[in-house]
Amino acid sequence: MILEVAEIRVKRGHDEEFIDGVADAMPLFLRAKGCHGISLHKVLELQDVYRLVVKWDTVEDHTVHFRNSSEFTEWRRLVGCYFEAPPVVTHLEQLLEASVPA
Amino acid sequence: MILEVAEIRVKRGHDEEFIDGVADAMPLFLRAKGCHGISLHKVLELQDVYRLVVKWDTVEDHTVHFRNSSEFTEWRRLVGCYFEAPPVVTHLEQLLEASVPA
Repeated sequence: MILEVAEIRVKRGHDEEFIDGVADAMPLFLRAKGCHGISLHKVLELQDVYRLVVKWDTVEDHTVHFRNSSEFTEWRRLVGCYFEAPPVVTHLEQLLEASVPA
Repeated sequence: MILEVAEIRVKRGHDEEFIDGVADAMPLFLRAKGCHGISLHKVLELQDVYRLVVKWDTVEDHTVHFRNSSEFTEWRRLVGCYFEAPPVVTHLEQLLEASVPA
């Protein structure tokens, strides 16, 4: 499992429209090949900056299959107008994990 | 719930010792006030760069309680020698989440 992390700076004052757009776009990701889930986070220390985290089976499920799909075009149509700059994207491979027992 | 994300650049060639040190240090986090879990990830696009993600009830559980604890001192004793530079730390608040049904 791979995590895509897209850091997105949103145009000042467009936070609500951006968040609503991401909520509307979530089904586009959830039905994509290899996608297991998506979440949106606010970076507390940085004004206007969000991180979108998407779980994929492989890097290529994101960079090849999703980016070349009509779902990607639709994703950008819904939220791209609120981006202040192109998202900065990295991919993470989990090496270790531990949880506190519930 | 808050996510602490610490981006850590490791001294070239010390990846294995760093990962082993994080594995050894995990119990220090898991017994800390407000901690729910911890994971370590490799940033695939950036050589030597890792992200440590820790789930806390509040930002202060990390920045006040943990950083002023003996567990933090021990954490830095175990792995601090492998840091190429001070970690870059941000805190995330989750706004949206959706998963593909299993």
